[in-house]
Amino acid sequence: MRSEVVCTLAEVASIVGGRVEGDESVTVERIAPVADAGRGDLGFLADRRYLEGVPETGASALLVSTELADALDTPLPRVVVDDGHRALQALLSAWYPVRAPDPGVHPTAVLGRGVTLGEGVEIGPYVVLGAGCAVGDGTRIDAHCVVGEHCTIGPSSVLHPHVVLYAGTEVGARVTLHAGVRLGVDGFGYAWIDGGHRKVPQVGGCIVEDDVEIGANTTLDRGSIGDTRVGHGTKLDNLVHLAHNVQTGPHCAAAAMVGIAGSSRLGTGVFLGGQAGVIGHLELGDGVKVAAKAAVFRDVPPGETVAGIPARPNREFLRSRAQVERLPKLLDRVARLEERLARLEDDDPPVRGA
Amino acid sequence: MRSEVVCTLAEVASIVGGRVEGDESVTVERIAPVADAGRGDLGFLADRRYLEGVPETGASALLVSTELADALDTPLPRVVVDDGHRALQALLSAWYPVRAPDPGVHPTAVLGRGVTLGEGVEIGPYVVLGAGCAVGDGTRIDAHCVVGEHCTIGPSSVLHPHVVLYAGTEVGARVTLHAGVRLGVDGFGYAWIDGGHRKVPQVGGCIVEDDVEIGANTTLDRGSIGDTRVGHGTKLDNLVHLAHNVQTGPHCAAAAMVGIAGSSRLGTGVFLGGQAGVIGHLELGDGVKVAAKAAVFRDVPPGETVAGIPARPNREFLRSRAQVERLPKLLDRVARLEERLARLEDDDPPVRGA
Amino acid sequence: MRSEVVCTLAEVASIVGGRVEGDESVTVERIAPVADAGRGDLGFLADRRYLEGVPETGASALLVSTELADALDTPLPRVVVDDGHRALQALLSAWYPVRAPDPGVHPTAVLGRGVTLGEGVEIGPYVVLGAGCAVGDGTRIDAHCVVGEHCTIGPSSVLHPHVVLYAGTEVGARVTLHAGVRLGVDGFGYAWIDGGHRKVPQVGGCIVEDDVEIGANTTLDRGSIGDTRVGHGTKLDNLVHLAHNVQTGPHCAAAAMVGIAGSSRLGTGVFLGGQAGVIGHLELGDGVKVAAKAAVFRDVPPGETVAGIPARPNREFLRSRAQVERLPKLLDRVARLEERLARLEDDDPPVRGA
Repeated sequence: MRSEVVCTLAEVASIVGGRVEGDESVTVERIAPVADAGRGDLGFLADRRYLEGVPETGASALLVSTELADALDTPLPRVVVDDGHRALQALLSAWYPVRAPDPGVHPTAVLGRGVTLGEGVEIGPYVVLGAGCAVGDGTRIDAHCVVGEHCTIGPSSVLHPHVVLYAGTEVGARVTLHAGVRLGVDGFGYAWIDGGHRKVPQVGGCIVEDDVEIGANTTLDRGSIGDTRVGHGTKLDNLVHLAHNVQTGPHCAAAAMVGIAGSSRLGTGVFLGGQAGVIGHLELGDGVKVAAKAAVFRDVPPGETVAGIPARPNREFLRSRAQVERLPKLLDRVARLEERLARLEDDDPPVRGA
Repeated sequence: MRSEVVCTLAEVASIVGGRVEGDESVTVERIAPVADAGRGDLGFLADRRYLEGVPETGASALLVSTELADALDTPLPRVVVDDGHRALQALLSAWYPVRAPDPGVHPTAVLGRGVTLGEGVEIGPYVVLGAGCAVGDGTRIDAHCVVGEHCTIGPSSVLHPHVVLYAGTEVGARVTLHAGVRLGVDGFGYAWIDGGHRKVPQVGGCIVEDDVEIGANTTLDRGSIGDTRVGHGTKLDNLVHLAHNVQTGPHCAAAAMVGIAGSSRLGTGVFLGGQAGVIGHLELGDGVKVAAKAAVFRDVPPGETVAGIPARPNREFLRSRAQVERLPKLLDRVARLEERLARLEDDDPPVRGA
Repeated sequence: MRSEVVCTLAEVASIVGGRVEGDESVTVERIAPVADAGRGDLGFLADRRYLEGVPETGASALLVSTELADALDTPLPRVVVDDGHRALQALLSAWYPVRAPDPGVHPTAVLGRGVTLGEGVEIGPYVVLGAGCAVGDGTRIDAHCVVGEHCTIGPSSVLHPHVVLYAGTEVGARVTLHAGVRLGVDGFGYAWIDGGHRKVPQVGGCIVEDDVEIGANTTLDRGSIGDTRVGHGTKLDNLVHLAHNVQTGPHCAAAAMVGIAGSSRLGTGVFLGGQAGVIGHLELGDGVKVAAKAAVFRDVPPGETVAGIPARPNREFLRSRAQVERLPKLLDRVARLEERLARLEDDDPPVRGA
């Protein structure tokens, strides 16, 4: 995406709270990774591993953290900051402001009885809002979203195209739902009766608190009885699945393809790496970190970092892996012991018999 | 969701086939997990691990299995049943009957030539039905579903919003498809010809038998040649993937994010835990159980429970895990053997030389 | 799907470049797996493991590779080819030609300002094309697709129903996007500022080169800064996730449910098995193969085949697995060593004391 900005390095430094080294009148109009940057670009150095690309960069200037600034092999002017990612966030937020909604209801939208829309709401083409829905001020609902009956959506939220909310779903303020998100889906609940799986009606709620962002094609089940809840400020990536009655605390983050089974509860600030899984009815304490691809089969106390299948404390995981890798050596040692012992046993009888 | 019921415990007991202990005239109007239940709620105790929440529950009464009833630390009246989950299923089915379709075709629906609709069919806004489709009596097709040409959908089925059926897909009676389900997608079939992957046209069928439920954003490929088939009564959770020519028996259940590769076949009543995977061209016999996150790389005989990556019989899996966990101890034992043996070897020569 | 062909075996042989053994005037009109084939079908034998189904097949004739032809236990006439899958590809391509677009814009489609459509473009019902989009000649966009502003889609591409492209996405020629594909989604990028995850605006591109096919409900993030790119001829299966700034070379293939985290780069012709994962900022060299369910935590050099969690060269993986499986035996050996050593130690003192 093109911004429409031209900025001097002095202006950049002022936005990100950094200092300029070199010519502060140099102008930039885009930000790009160092390796891809060209003329007019502010080259961003995200990580030490990209340092080698610096000498050949086509960037007009660099944005770099104090930590990496000394290692730069280039005479290019630069803006130096304490925390590169924070600076990037500040600069991009300034250059690419979130598009304000374009208030109005597209003539093709279908609104049920008793729908209430706040001020400045934008409803896109072919949106369907069920009876009794309420949409807060300044919220934007993009093309083809389908919102079931009696849902509530808070102010300043964005529903990208093709979101579906099942009846009764509650979405907070400043929430972003990406394309293909499904909220309030029936949970996977059956009882085995008379030779078949009989559906247990799923009648609980699905509540997404304020400042949550949910990635494309992610699915959240409603509670069976009781609620499924995503705590405020929590971020879920694409293709994540939260089963019925899962509850996350505030400020959690789950990378793509994470799955959490029924009734498990996450504390505050829990992080899950991509493709990690958590079975049902567990507790993950505040600040727990789960490594990518791990499978959590037991409660995890607050602050613990776990990895592996089944997941265990990271230190144990690493030790156990190291030991498995040392198995060939262990086999050799045992073989040598057997030889030496056999030799001793052979030796012994003559000694005794001597 | 609110039901509109007020029920005495006597009535509850009669619905679920249980008996009341305590005042049977107490009324309840909702069912909730014990921990969340308030005044007017029937608190449901799903599992022993939630017993500790009983003394503080705000529920007006409890629904509990015989097994747990004795352990209750509360004077609250209760309905006691043999099987709690079965009772829950019965009570919720009575209180929250499935909404009957509201017959009619929304004026925005687009119907191709030769579409046939049964009695009492409900077609929602912006639905597109391709030429030659047939929809059975009492079936409901929600907003934005797209059904390709010559599909058939049996009676009393429900397609939630945003379902897509590719041309020629066959769906049975009393089937539920959740939002974002894709059926009859082209399988992942290519031949490497002249330096590129060339598509092998995918021309087989995709057949979903009666009483199947399929979760949100789940995808089923059509057969390459021959059919993909989901047996009657089988339940698939959200974000599941069945590749071309997969065939499941009746009454299987696959939890969220299960993936089954091409041409694998499941017998009757197979269960797969969340995020489990099965590679192509395998046979899983009747009653096989696959643990969450397991990866099945070989055929599994009927009745077997498998776990791990690669999946192996559960007993083996547990033993192997235990042994890996005992590796540090094994290392110690070998080190001690080496010391003791060295001592013996040192001792021996003097003996021999004596 | 039914083709409308009736073909003699002589004609089949000419299409696939094979030779007939038996009566070449026999006619077939469909192709089916040997096990399912009936009268009028050309039975296809995909693999040695299906040989046992040959004697009972109802097929009128067989299509088989030279390699398997000798093992056939049947007098049926057959077409024999060097490479069965290549022949299948040729025959199905001839019998089931890709449907040409039916040019025109459905009256319900909503086109933004400045949309440009090539010759022979087909735009289905309820499609929404944002301002400034460009669609190449002969491209088909099916029902309910939503294409954001300033996207470009090359010629002869197909967007199946319910595809969403975020603003600025670039799609090449002869690309196939299956139902529910989401391209150009915001990446999962946050900075932790003032006690919360703050969104780093995602402003990079999402580029899908020529001859790519992407499976149902697969999601591709746009770059944060810089681009996400899928190389020409690459094929992605259903429910795959590529995070921001992932770049794949040409002719890669990722089976269902593969996830690749941010900024990782794949060379030419990389293959990933189902449910495999790759963490961020890695390089996978040309021709790398990643086994199903593997988790890649380190760079992989060109040509390497890796497996396991964490992924390691396949030979190492197999050796390590074998060693873990031999642990019970190792435990026995160590126990026996301990006994024998104890015996020696007991024996020794009397010897010395003798």
